[in-house]
Amino acid sequence: MAENVKVAVVGVGNNTSALVQGITFYRNTGSLVGIRRPEIVGLGVGDIDFVAAFALSDGKVGRDLHEAIFVPPNNFPRLDVELPPSGVTVQRGLVDSTEIERVAHALTGAEVLLYSAPSGRPGTAQAYAEAALMAGAAFINTTSDAVAREPLWLKRFEEAGLPLLGDDLASQFGTSVVHHALLRLLEERGLTLASSYQVNLGGTEDFRNLVENSNTKKQSKLNVLGSDKVQMAPLGYLPHLQSQKIAHVNIEAQGWGETAVSLDVRLKVHDPSGAAGVNIDLIRIAATALRAGRGGYPAEAASFLKSPPGTAI
Amino acid sequence: MAENVKVAVVGVGNNTSALVQGITFYRNTGSLVGIRRPEIVGLGVGDIDFVAAFALSDGKVGRDLHEAIFVPPNNFPRLDVELPPSGVTVQRGLVDSTEIERVAHALTGAEVLLYSAPSGRPGTAQAYAEAALMAGAAFINTTSDAVAREPLWLKRFEEAGLPLLGDDLASQFGTSVVHHALLRLLEERGLTLASSYQVNLGGTEDFRNLVENSNTKKQSKLNVLGSDKVQMAPLGYLPHLQSQKIAHVNIEAQGWGETAVSLDVRLKVHDPSGAAGVNIDLIRIAATALRAGRGGYPAEAASFLKSPPGTAI
Amino acid sequence: MAENVKVAVVGVGNNTSALVQGITFYRNTGSLVGIRRPEIVGLGVGDIDFVAAFALSDGKVGRDLHEAIFVPPNNFPRLDVELPPSGVTVQRGLVDSTEIERVAHALTGAEVLLYSAPSGRPGTAQAYAEAALMAGAAFINTTSDAVAREPLWLKRFEEAGLPLLGDDLASQFGTSVVHHALLRLLEERGLTLASSYQVNLGGTEDFRNLVENSNTKKQSKLNVLGSDKVQMAPLGYLPHLQSQKIAHVNIEAQGWGETAVSLDVRLKVHDPSGAAGVNIDLIRIAATALRAGRGGYPAEAASFLKSPPGTAI
Amino acid sequence: MAENVKVAVVGVGNNTSALVQGITFYRNTGSLVGIRRPEIVGLGVGDIDFVAAFALSDGKVGRDLHEAIFVPPNNFPRLDVELPPSGVTVQRGLVDSTEIERVAHALTGAEVLLYSAPSGRPGTAQAYAEAALMAGAAFINTTSDAVAREPLWLKRFEEAGLPLLGDDLASQFGTSVVHHALLRLLEERGLTLASSYQVNLGGTEDFRNLVENSNTKKQSKLNVLGSDKVQMAPLGYLPHLQSQKIAHVNIEAQGWGETAVSLDVRLKVHDPSGAAGVNIDLIRIAATALRAGRGGYPAEAASFLKSPPGTAI
Repeated sequence: MAENVKVAVVGVGNNTSALVQGITFYRNTGSLVGIRRPEIVGLGVGDIDFVAAFALSDGKVGRDLHEAIFVPPNNFPRLDVELPPSGVTVQRGLVDSTEIERVAHALTGAEVLLYSAPSGRPGTAQAYAEAALMAGAAFINTTSDAVAREPLWLKRFEEAGLPLLGDDLASQFGTSVVHHALLRLLEERGLTLASSYQVNLGGTEDFRNLVENSNTKKQSKLNVLGSDKVQMAPLGYLPHLQSQKIAHVNIEAQGWGETAVSLDVRLKVHDPSGAAGVNIDLIRIAATALRAGRGGYPAEAASFLKSPPGTAI
Repeated sequence: MAENVKVAVVGVGNNTSALVQGITFYRNTGSLVGIRRPEIVGLGVGDIDFVAAFALSDGKVGRDLHEAIFVPPNNFPRLDVELPPSGVTVQRGLVDSTEIERVAHALTGAEVLLYSAPSGRPGTAQAYAEAALMAGAAFINTTSDAVAREPLWLKRFEEAGLPLLGDDLASQFGTSVVHHALLRLLEERGLTLASSYQVNLGGTEDFRNLVENSNTKKQSKLNVLGSDKVQMAPLGYLPHLQSQKIAHVNIEAQGWGETAVSLDVRLKVHDPSGAAGVNIDLIRIAATALRAGRGGYPAEAASFLKSPPGTAI
Repeated sequence: MAENVKVAVVGVGNNTSALVQGITFYRNTGSLVGIRRPEIVGLGVGDIDFVAAFALSDGKVGRDLHEAIFVPPNNFPRLDVELPPSGVTVQRGLVDSTEIERVAHALTGAEVLLYSAPSGRPGTAQAYAEAALMAGAAFINTTSDAVAREPLWLKRFEEAGLPLLGDDLASQFGTSVVHHALLRLLEERGLTLASSYQVNLGGTEDFRNLVENSNTKKQSKLNVLGSDKVQMAPLGYLPHLQSQKIAHVNIEAQGWGETAVSLDVRLKVHDPSGAAGVNIDLIRIAATALRAGRGGYPAEAASFLKSPPGTAI
Repeated sequence: MAENVKVAVVGVGNNTSALVQGITFYRNTGSLVGIRRPEIVGLGVGDIDFVAAFALSDGKVGRDLHEAIFVPPNNFPRLDVELPPSGVTVQRGLVDSTEIERVAHALTGAEVLLYSAPSGRPGTAQAYAEAALMAGAAFINTTSDAVAREPLWLKRFEEAGLPLLGDDLASQFGTSVVHHALLRLLEERGLTLASSYQVNLGGTEDFRNLVENSNTKKQSKLNVLGSDKVQMAPLGYLPHLQSQKIAHVNIEAQGWGETAVSLDVRLKVHDPSGAAGVNIDLIRIAATALRAGRGGYPAEAASFLKSPPGTAI
C-alpha cells in the first residue's frame, strides 16, 4: 500500500475548499461517486495529506486550513462531512521573489506543490515554481500563466528530476466539455453547423474577476473544432449562484436536405468541483512520477490540461 | 465515374419523400450541407435513379413517385427543389406471398431493393427479400423485423452472391444518438449518473402507430450503457409537429464530492431526414458490394443499423 | 385571538404529509415563505390541530399521524422540522356505507373534515360527507368526484348550517397555472396562438394511478381559453422524481407580420406542496364559515377549486 | 370609413422595415394574425400611408422607402409580400437645429411624425418635435430620450392642439413582458421569490449599440415589482441572430413548506415586430386625437409606453 501523498497548496479559494473537503469526504465514506479514477498506481482519492497552505488575504492567513476554506468570498458549499482541525495553519503567501527561500523552507517534507491561485500573475507562479525546485517538490500549475509550457522551466525541472505539471486546468465537466462533445457528434454524423452560442453565468469571485477583466463589450468567437460559427456571449456574474455555474448552449445545424436541427442545452455544475476532480488526479500523477524519479512533464497528465508543454505561449 | 445506382423502393412514406427529394436537391444544387459521406467508392449522393416503387394506399398507387410522396398522411416538407415527373409510377405492393413473382418481375433492372415500409410485418419484409433474391438485387431492410439477423436468410443471400443489409435503421441524428453521447461523456469524465429521462414528441403517421402500439401506460427503462437509471416517458403524438420530432432529455449526475450536475436538452429534428441521411449511405454500400460480387452482409454497414446480423432475434 | 381549528383528515398520502409537516414547520419557525394568505379572519397557517385521521393501508392504520405520513408509497420529503408524536392515531377508513356511524362518532370535536383521498371513488367521498353531516362538521372535498357540485348534497349542508367546499382542488402553482397565464398574456398582447403542448412527468403514487387509468394512447386536447390548439402529451410516471413534478410547456405563436414567437418553459415543483398550500386556505375558510353559522358553499373558496357548485357533473 | 393616416417617419431601421412591410402585408392579405387591435376608431392596420421618411446613412438617403428598408445593417426578414415602389424617397434627416425648417416643410401633409431613430440623441428628438409643431403634426417619440415627459414640451403641444405621444416604446411581446407576468403570477399565488435572472441575446444594430454603450461589466439588478432579487446578465450581441432576440429567464422560488419551485423559460421573438406591433397602435391613436382636435398626451397610449408624462426624467 502506497504512503499518503504530502501536498502543499498555494491559494485557499473555492477550488481548494472543494479539494480539501472532498478528500476527507471520500476518505471517511468510502464513496466512489463522482470519481474519475478510483486509484492511480495504488493511490486512492483519500490518500492525500496537506502539509502546508499559502494565501494572501488577512482573513485566511493564520487560521487552520479547515476553517480558512470557508472564509468569504469563498462560497463553495459545506459538504456533508466533519472537518476537525487539520493542524495546518495557513501561511502568508509570497508577493515577491525575495520570499522564495522562506516558502521553500516551509515546503520541507512536501512532495507536491499545487499552485491553485488566480490566473494573471506569472511572476508569482514562477516564484513558487522556484521554491518547489529548491525544496525538491513536484510542481502543478493550474493557472493559465506560462510555467510548464515555458521550455526553460521545463528543462530545469527535468534536470532536477522533479515533475512539472501544467498549464491551465481543464475542468472535469464544464461548458466546454459538453459544447465540444456535441459539436464533435454533429460532425461525426455528417450534420453541418449553422450557428452556435454559449452563455455562462456564475457567482464566484473568480467569475467576477473574469467578467471584470474581459472585454465583455465585444462578442468573441470560440474557435472550436476549426469552426468560426461558435459565439461566446459575455459572461454574467450573478452572485446568488454562489459556486454554481449555469450555461446555456445552443446549436443550430442542418441535416439531410438542409433541413433544420436544433439543440438547446442548459447545464448546471459546481465549478470548484470540476477543478478538484482534476486536481486530485494531477496530484497523484505528480507524486507517482516523483517517487519513480521521473522529472519533467509526465505525459499521462495531458488530458487534464489546456496548455501543456508544446502549446504556444 | 461510376454509373448511377438503380433503386426500387418499398413504402412511399415520409422517409422515402425525404430520400427522393433530397437526392434531386443535392444533384441540382451540388450542396454538401448535411451529408455524412459525400462519396462512397465513386458514388455521390445524387448518383441514384429510382426505377420502381411499391405502396399499398390507394392514394399513392398509380401516381408518379414525385407526386405520391406528398400524399397524406405524408407530411415531410417540400424541399426547395423542382420535381418534374419521375417517370416511375407507384405500383401496388404485395400483401401475400402469391405475389412475389409479380414483384420480382417488376424489379428487373434494379440493383438495390430498399425496404422502407412500417415495421411490424415480418412476413411482408421476407416476401420482398424473396423477390430481391429472384431478381438478383441487393436487399436493405430498414425495419425492426428480422431479415438480415435471421441466419437462414443471410445464408441464402451469401450463396446467391447478393448483399443483404439490415435490420433496423439507426437515425443519422436523433434522440438516442444525443442521449447516448452525453451519457458516455459523463462516464468518461468520471461523473456518476443519478437519473435520466427522455421524452419524445412527434407528428408523423409512424409516430402515431408507435404510440398506439406501445404499452404507453407503463414507463419503460432504457438499458443504455449498462445503466438502469435511464427512463423513457411515454411517446406523445402531436399532429401539429408534422414530420418534426421534439425530444426533452434530462440527466442528473454527481461529480466530485457528490455535488450535483444537471443537464437539460431540447432537440428538434426532422425524423425522415435522419432516416434518409442513412439510407443514402446504405444504398451506395449495397450497390458497391453488388457490383464487386460480394454477397451477404457488408461489414461497412454496421454503424448504420441497430440490429445487424449477430443480434438476438 | 381565534381558537385553533380542529381538523380530521381522510387520506394520509403525500398531500396530507405536506400539510401536516408544513403546519408544524410554520408554527415553529414563524416563517411566511411560500404562504399565500398569512391570516384568514384571525387564523394563521399554524393555527390548526389535527384531531383524527383515516387511511386504508395496513402500513398506516394504527400508527401515529406523524409517523404514518412517511410510510411508502408516500415520498414527499421530510421538511426541516421536529415532529414529536402527534397523539393522533390513524384509524381505518370506511369502505362502505355501513361504517358511516363509526366514522361520524370518531369525528366528535372536529370542526372540519378534509377529504384528501385519491379521486375516483364517489361513493366513498359521499359516505364521508354523510359522516360530516352527522357529526356537525364542515366538509372539504379535494377530489374530482362530485359532492359540492351535486345540488342535493349542497342543499343538505345548507339546511344543516354546515359549510361544504369542493370539488377538485386547484393547485397553488402547477403546470396549468403557468400555461394558462402565458396563453392569456399572449392573447392580451394580441399575438395569435399557432400551437402549444404540455408534457407532465411525476413520481408519486397519485401520478402512477393517473397514468394507468388514463387513456394515454390518445393525445388529448386541452380546451384552454377557448383554443383547440393546446395539446396534452401523455403523462409520464418516473419514480425517481418522487413527489416532484416536471413539466415542459411549449407555445408557438405569431406576432406582427405573422413573424414567429416561441416560448419554452420547464417547470419543477413539489406537487403535494401545491395541494397543501391550497388546503390550508380551504380549512380556514371552512372553519370561519362554520363558526359564523354560514352553511353551504362559501363563495370565497371559488378561486381554489376547479369544479365548484354550478359546474356540470 | 375613415381616411388613411398620413405618416412621416424618422429612422429607416429594422423597426420601420417591420412597420412598413407589415402594413402592406395586412392590407393585401386581410390577415388578422398577430394584431392586437384590428380597429381603432375606424382605422385598420392597413389604413396608413407613408408620405415622408428621413434617415442619415448614405445607403438609405435618396432611395425609395421600399428599397431603403432592406439596406444593411437592417436585417429584419423580408415578409411574404410584394412591395412595389412606394413613391416616397428617403430624405436626409436633420443633424442640427438649423435644419428644422427644412424638415417642417417636408412634413407638409403629414398628420403624424413617428420618431423611430436610435435612442441617445435627445437634441435630435426635440428638433424633430419642433418641426412637427411647425408643420401641425402629431409627434410620437419611441426613444427613451425625454420629450413627452418633459413638461415644457407637453405644454407646447397642448397649446398647439397637437398630440404628443411618448416616451420609450414598450414592446408588444418581449422579455420584460414575459418576465413580469411570471413574477406577478408567483406573487399572486403566494410563492416567495428566491432569485431570478434574465439573459438577452440579439443581432441587430440597435442591440450592438446597447451592448457597446452599456456598462456590461457590472451585473445590474432589475427593480421588478419591488424586488431586488432579479438580475440582468450582460447583453450578448450575436450577429447571426439577425433581428431575432433570444432570452433565457430563470425564476427560483419557494412554495408551501419552503419547498423549491423553479421555472426556466426560453423566448425567441423578432424584436422589430414587437416594436411595429405597438407603433401601429400609437399612430392610430395619434391620428384619432389629432382629428378630434385633442392636443397633448392621449391617455389611451399609456399601456404602450415605458416613460409616459409624469415619469421622472
